[in-house]
Amino acid sequence: MASVKTLDDLFLHTLQDIYYAEKQIVKALPKMAKKAASSELKGAFEKHLEETKGQVERLDQVFEALGKKSKAVKCQAIEGIIEEAQELMEEVEDEQTLDAAMLAAAQAVEHYEISRYGTLISWAKTLGHEEVVSLLEETLEQEKATDSALSKLGESAVNKKAA
Amino acid sequence: MASVKTLDDLFLHTLQDIYYAEKQIVKALPKMAKKAASSELKGAFEKHLEETKGQVERLDQVFEALGKKSKAVKCQAIEGIIEEAQELMEEVEDEQTLDAAMLAAAQAVEHYEISRYGTLISWAKTLGHEEVVSLLEETLEQEKATDSALSKLGESAVNKKAA
Repeated sequence: MASVKTLDDLFLHTLQDIYYAEKQIVKALPKMAKKAASSELKGAFEKHLEETKGQVERLDQVFEALGKKSKAVKCQAIEGIIEEAQELMEEVEDEQTLDAAMLAAAQAVEHYEISRYGTLISWAKTLGHEEVVSLLEETLEQEKATDSALSKLGESAVNKKAA
Repeated sequence: MASVKTLDDLFLHTLQDIYYAEKQIVKALPKMAKKAASSELKGAFEKHLEETKGQVERLDQVFEALGKKSKAVKCQAIEGIIEEAQELMEEVEDEQTLDAAMLAAAQAVEHYEISRYGTLISWAKTLGHEEVVSLLEETLEQEKATDSALSKLGESAVNKKAA
């Protein structure tokens, strides 16, 4: 970790952490979409892949607005969440059960991002980086909407098929 | 991972995963409380430690209601989230900045739990394990309340002191 002395350093570090996380998610989602048995779940993963690519671009805009180069630092939290999902993807043979597992894993990812963007918005306001607040808020709203959509999809279809 | 073939297996596996996570959180919170400079943040960590111990007991009741032995299986997601927090606790010297970092880490933990308990409640309903739904819901409400309280504490005090 680069030296973190001030809240500004911590803000930048956390931006680099979520930048890494978003890039890992861009790599993971196509694998999850490919494995999904439910066409609705596949569609949800594909839609969120496109959104996530947009979120990476929005982070590029945030770095630029702050006069910093876009940079990713390894984020152990997202590594752990994705490793857990990959393990299930290798182990669970029944495709309906796997769908339920992947949907749950995707919600764990969304909640990690919801917590990080919430924190970043709070710090950006405190630090007076008003110029990046709306970019971060746009992504936060997308993550919340994705989480809700996944909850509904679980209740209406995926979990019932798996039961 | 024990063989996961059905949604019932996945439900049990995820209970064991969150049981592990809660036990790790019981170990991490006293260290965070000890490091906290803000007395309010220290108090929030101490309060949540007591709640978390209650959540472990509630999971024991869930296992019992399902006729299963309480068991923890390693949860890579919580390991990653806590490792990231520990790294910051070692690296960040300024105590106000460290408070902001620990508050954010605690919110990442809360959001992981919110996603897991949300999933468990949805699966318990689908599987007809009505007897454990209210236990899981009680914990979910506590996690959401803790997350909100931490957000307010960040906005009202911790982040401002760090800025």
